Amino acid sequence: MTTRSPPPFLVSALSNYPSTASDSDVDSSRTRPFVTLTFAQSIDAKIAGENSTQLILSGKESMLMTHWMRTMHDAILIGIGTALNDDPQLNTRYLPPRSPAQPRYHLPRPVILDTDLRLPTTCKLLKNYQNGTGRRPWLICFGHGLQFDIVEWERRYDALEKAGAKIITLQVYTPQSKLPLEKILQALHTAGIRSVMIEGGARVIGSFFKQTPPVVDNIVVTVAPIFVGEKGISYGLPLQQASGFKHMHSELVGNDTVVTLTATN
Amino acid sequence: MTTRSPPPFLVSALSNYPSTASDSDVDSSRTRPFVTLTFAQSIDAKIAGENSTQLILSGKESMLMTHWMRTMHDAILIGIGTALNDDPQLNTRYLPPRSPAQPRYHLPRPVILDTDLRLPTTCKLLKNYQNGTGRRPWLICFGHGLQFDIVEWERRYDALEKAGAKIITLQVYTPQSKLPLEKILQALHTAGIRSVMIEGGARVIGSFFKQTPPVVDNIVVTVAPIFVGEKGISYGLPLQQASGFKHMHSELVGNDTVVTLTATN
Repeated sequence: MTTRSPPPFLVSALSNYPSTASDSDVDSSRTRPFVTLTFAQSIDAKIAGENSTQLILSGKESMLMTHWMRTMHDAILIGIGTALNDDPQLNTRYLPPRSPAQPRYHLPRPVILDTDLRLPTTCKLLKNYQNGTGRRPWLICFGHGLQFDIVEWERRYDALEKAGAKIITLQVYTPQSKLPLEKILQALHTAGIRSVMIEGGARVIGSFFKQTPPVVDNIVVTVAPIFVGEKGISYGLPLQQASGFKHMHSELVGNDTVVTLTATN
Repeated sequence: MTTRSPPPFLVSALSNYPSTASDSDVDSSRTRPFVTLTFAQSIDAKIAGENSTQLILSGKESMLMTHWMRTMHDAILIGIGTALNDDPQLNTRYLPPRSPAQPRYHLPRPVILDTDLRLPTTCKLLKNYQNGTGRRPWLICFGHGLQFDIVEWERRYDALEKAGAKIITLQVYTPQSKLPLEKILQALHTAGIRSVMIEGGARVIGSFFKQTPPVVDNIVVTVAPIFVGEKGISYGLPLQQASGFKHMHSELVGNDTVVTLTATN
């Protein structure tokens, strides 16, 4: 894999997405962004260890590929579990430096699903925004988090806003066990997001897989050549959704295999 | 992948196995054959569909690879479930024809774990033996199958022997839920089998994965670029066994990826 430009199979996989550079020629018939589901798994389809511990599943070549993928999306969406466990930066820092004459890499918008506003004000996403190296993170909550303690809720809200977060509150009743993905995607579309890359964790990936009607346009899965064992966390994938994708391409990336699939509907 | 000779990564993966052509230089310190566990799975680690229905998981290039692998082992072992579901031939018929001047392909010994002697006398393995195109299949049972009906047991025993099967009865008490793999492997070794390829199904693969101390020397797993969904059958893999393998090689074979791993102990 070349390090100077995005791998051709990624360009090909995402070729129907609008350019991140311009939103002017967007298909107005759509009401949600294009959705790329991406995750790294072991051969035995585990995406986290026992009790959701983070696994270093993919090699450095796959990491680089992930950073190329990030530049190709308007936004990166993660769950609060991943934000708390990994303290990710969701940027493109592994990409080769560009000269001042070259256009800068597109930096995607970080979006965190955070029902109870648990994101620490000291996290890297907010620090990077404060020191000018990251985009402002958006937090999505549902207006019913922490209802038992409105004072604590408002304290967190104010602290996060002060630290730089933009908080988007969706007024939607939803059981804690089910994410209102349709509303979330509509809200992102309204806010100008035309393509979003879903980076995990297990619960968010499972929710996207389970959504009916389906919302996932492309899957980019990195299979690391290891076994984790049956106590690891997998993703639930209903039978009818499983058959909704066709194979696009497989590529060896370091020791990993990256498989791209696209929705058939 | 060339079709004229075995893929180099297979030759490399199995390089420590004794040659199938000769048993003369066998390491006498061993009491069991080398064991290669091989199976095809979906991305979500399913090796069979709902209710153990057979899945056509791998493409024709992977099938060819499997036939090359068969020539590289003394025996192929399957469970009776696979024998009943798939009626397999376990031969090397996809390999390119050889001229009379060339040595014939080594044909592996079919071995079926068949506690209750359920193998039909009309199966392809016995037919191929009868018409001279297959080796005599060995059936392994444990002397306690069908104990409730000794007449029926003897009827099956005689019919299978008449049809050409060699029946190996291991006098070992074992609960139905657990295969006595150590005894089975010892019996095969005593019978001159120096390397055995385990081709499934799910229960047999799970049993080999679960065995303590471990008995699997190499794993050759074919990952097909599809999802099956959560009702498919996977293999159980305990945590301590999962960490007992290191990655050897990954290779794109048609649309599939073949990953080889080797035991670290």
